[in-house]
Amino acid sequence: MLPRPIQNLIDQFAKLPSVGPRQAARFVFYLIKQPKKELDEFTKAVLGISKNLKNCSLCFRFMETTGNICDVCKDTKRDNSTICIVEKDTDIEAIEKIGRYNGLYHVLGNNGIKDFGEKNIQELHLKELIERIKKNQEVKEIIIATSATTEGDTLALYISRLLKPLDIKITRLGRGLSTGSELEYMDEETLTNALLSRK
Amino acid sequence: MLPRPIQNLIDQFAKLPSVGPRQAARFVFYLIKQPKKELDEFTKAVLGISKNLKNCSLCFRFMETTGNICDVCKDTKRDNSTICIVEKDTDIEAIEKIGRYNGLYHVLGNNGIKDFGEKNIQELHLKELIERIKKNQEVKEIIIATSATTEGDTLALYISRLLKPLDIKITRLGRGLSTGSELEYMDEETLTNALLSRK
Repeated sequence: MLPRPIQNLIDQFAKLPSVGPRQAARFVFYLIKQPKKELDEFTKAVLGISKNLKNCSLCFRFMETTGNICDVCKDTKRDNSTICIVEKDTDIEAIEKIGRYNGLYHVLGNNGIKDFGEKNIQELHLKELIERIKKNQEVKEIIIATSATTEGDTLALYISRLLKPLDIKITRLGRGLSTGSELEYMDEETLTNALLSRK
Repeated sequence: MLPRPIQNLIDQFAKLPSVGPRQAARFVFYLIKQPKKELDEFTKAVLGISKNLKNCSLCFRFMETTGNICDVCKDTKRDNSTICIVEKDTDIEAIEKIGRYNGLYHVLGNNGIKDFGEKNIQELHLKELIERIKKNQEVKEIIIATSATTEGDTLALYISRLLKPLDIKITRLGRGLSTGSELEYMDEETLTNALLSRK
């Protein structure tokens, strides 16, 4: 009964995490009652992520489509002897915010690491990480900054075993993080402590 | 720190009703990790509402941009002697769903009727409603189906006064107990209405 364009967008919004059809409908009706200018801005922003985004060819962070290497990776002021492995882009935001880390990053997967099995492991850019370490002889330390969850711990163990043959110092964020917490939602002090007490 | 296209879309999503910046970020990261095909479908749906939607020139329902009059208004099988005034498009969905009404509709505003003051009243397509009734001599009844809220009641009163000079039967939706409600927990006003409209 609803016009097709409205129903289409309701269906799409309803796919977003924790959004049901009723909230999706509220979103759509909110949007269509906006002035043209506002709606255009929204549309432009949506177009932006499919047109103007790609992954850094080194660390796999999302970046704008200018060049192949992200701001962090090409920043010569950063300490390229340390690579911090994180699950997802937002984890980098959390670490950058505390301003206590000046090394590089490596993003495992944009899907996070939930339900990681044989197949998902393949998608975690670990092969690329090993290549990257082998190519860059200056790398002295790898910080595995996965979540303090069962999956995060398992993955950290998996990665540290994988990297062992490379004979580089491998550290993990200090515990002090309460078990079950995700990096993205950590308060700054806990995160600072965790960073400082890594071993 | 986040790439601009991501931050832009987070800002846009955060404007949606009851969405905060954190949920907005979750939406964006959900979207960018989707396969290209899925993301394209989402983008297309968003484009759809700004390109393929307009308001019916008679009842102001949203409709696709083919022609000027919506499916309901041009349906010759519908009873054009009755017009049901609703606040918003989704109210029509609710009424159509029960399959007990075969007349026409008139949508007051896409913004709903919250905070309606002098200025908002101007946007409620009431002038157009009066024109519409004057032009269509077959209209015998106007059903004012505004919400059973203080605003809805006030608006209904306003509209019924406005339409009085036209000398047409004006009705409102019956008030009483909602199905499934227990007498014990009913508020006084509902109970009063139920008692008064007994039959």
